[in-house]
Amino acid sequence: MIRIGVDANGGDFGVETTVPAAMMAVKEFKDVEIVLYGDEAKIKPLLTNSERIKIVHTAVTLDMGEHDPLNAVRNHKDASLCMAMYAAKNGEVDGVVTSGPTQCVVMASHIIIRRLKEMERVALCPIVPNLDGNPRLILDVGANVELKKEHLGEFAVYASVVAKEVLGIDNPTVGMLNIGSEPGKGREFDKEAYEYLNSLKEINFKGNVEPDEIIDCPTNIVVCDGYSGNICIKTLEGTAKGMGTMLKQEVGHNLFALFLKKNFKRFKKRMDSSEVGGAMIFGIGKPVVKAHGNSKPYSYFNAIAQVKKMVELDIIGKVVKALPKKEA
Amino acid sequence: MIRIGVDANGGDFGVETTVPAAMMAVKEFKDVEIVLYGDEAKIKPLLTNSERIKIVHTAVTLDMGEHDPLNAVRNHKDASLCMAMYAAKNGEVDGVVTSGPTQCVVMASHIIIRRLKEMERVALCPIVPNLDGNPRLILDVGANVELKKEHLGEFAVYASVVAKEVLGIDNPTVGMLNIGSEPGKGREFDKEAYEYLNSLKEINFKGNVEPDEIIDCPTNIVVCDGYSGNICIKTLEGTAKGMGTMLKQEVGHNLFALFLKKNFKRFKKRMDSSEVGGAMIFGIGKPVVKAHGNSKPYSYFNAIAQVKKMVELDIIGKVVKALPKKEA
Repeated sequence: MIRIGVDANGGDFGVETTVPAAMMAVKEFKDVEIVLYGDEAKIKPLLTNSERIKIVHTAVTLDMGEHDPLNAVRNHKDASLCMAMYAAKNGEVDGVVTSGPTQCVVMASHIIIRRLKEMERVALCPIVPNLDGNPRLILDVGANVELKKEHLGEFAVYASVVAKEVLGIDNPTVGMLNIGSEPGKGREFDKEAYEYLNSLKEINFKGNVEPDEIIDCPTNIVVCDGYSGNICIKTLEGTAKGMGTMLKQEVGHNLFALFLKKNFKRFKKRMDSSEVGGAMIFGIGKPVVKAHGNSKPYSYFNAIAQVKKMVELDIIGKVVKALPKKEA
Repeated sequence: MIRIGVDANGGDFGVETTVPAAMMAVKEFKDVEIVLYGDEAKIKPLLTNSERIKIVHTAVTLDMGEHDPLNAVRNHKDASLCMAMYAAKNGEVDGVVTSGPTQCVVMASHIIIRRLKEMERVALCPIVPNLDGNPRLILDVGANVELKKEHLGEFAVYASVVAKEVLGIDNPTVGMLNIGSEPGKGREFDKEAYEYLNSLKEINFKGNVEPDEIIDCPTNIVVCDGYSGNICIKTLEGTAKGMGTMLKQEVGHNLFALFLKKNFKRFKKRMDSSEVGGAMIFGIGKPVVKAHGNSKPYSYFNAIAQVKKMVELDIIGKVVKALPKKEA
């Protein structure tokens, strides 16, 4: 039985999303048990099927406006997010799904579940939809502000295992986000990281990836320092959202748009990363997936399925084996 | 009379774009003279109106595949781009328009026209279309790889003059690209730059701007180090282009899309930065505008109009006055 902890209070819609998603998951996967950490009074009316679903009550939530994630996590051990994380740490669940505030999720993963001793840094790794229909992994996009080249190496190894095992990509390719395609482009950091990644036998490094290739990407994986990755991924999200708004404004009032409803829906779906799951936190002792804050039940269910797969495939065990051995 | 030098061979379409654009410009502006630096044999057949248009012949072009811009510029003084720049340096023209390779344009501006002694760095500043229909200035997006906080200050002052004079924005607001909205977010550089910009009396600083706000931006101007700015602007371009492709794929085969042709055109136009002109090179002794490589005559004409306005309004003289005085 795979036991998954769900931060039931988290996200824009809280239990309205998490409870239906949990029910979908137990219906779909006979070997999954869910523990909902959240407000019992709100969960119970929505829980029409409680088979293999347990509630652990807490009314406390970490909300999106949290400016100080470290203290939020430290001072609210009874928040639904933190309780799910403690349960993972203590072995009561095998993985965690949340749609809480990203920085709180990263912080809680870090200080509650704890970092793997084999990795020096934690990374936030979303799945980015691409033009060809095959998702890409990009990391780190915000768990760190500054990194060393060796950290990019760890991330590349980790993501290669996930791309192979979870996404089914044979011998996944790795690129490095940079402002030019040739070696020698970018900051000193980029030049050194390029050489380092190129020398790593554990990965299939293919060189620099430019930011304008991010949704039409020549590699399966893109590694970057958390700052640049955050700039890239947020620009992507903002542009996609803004263009969606513009399209609605320009086309929405035209009656003929009704006849294109299915087409527009398909278009929207292709850019929707929640179709393939949430952002993963790499480098900690248990699988944690952060679903989008505004996830609907179906997207959240995908995030649960993603954690299930990561547990099932023992991703973390495989990563530990794959990481270059540190010299003692 | 305002004399504008045009790199006639440059860009994806060369003289096919630049010659018609030059003719549009002299027709529209009676006080403009154009010098076309380019291949006379190719220009002449297209030049149906040579009033106030002069040709200075050269068949040499710097092409997009140029991997070493510094040596390209040094070793090809007879390239159309370089000849236009030398003419600006020598006072034969008042400004330059080109759609040559960005890094060659930056390099040629720098080593031929030369930096203003009042500024320590050169910046590349595109005009970014926004949801509300008002363009934003973002800089630096790639003339520098690493910067000091004082450089962001210079850029903010420069862009404030341009926003006021060229775009007609009263008391333009300035933001700083960062991965969080509150002060204290980001790298050490960002924290220091925030404090520095906040202390500058010459600008109207409003704090951090997050990358997902870049096309729905709370400030008129966004300053950033060239590396982050390049990541941001290239991600924006790549996402917009990729989404355009997806939209075409999903909607293009539906007959009803024909009835929405005007709507789609309007949509496309709203995201098209060339409607408002090209990217400006700030910090050098003459106005230089880099039009998009794939510019059509109308967009290129807009870039010529932009240089004309910058000359007319004596932007550089005004910037020099506005910059904080350096202590001797």
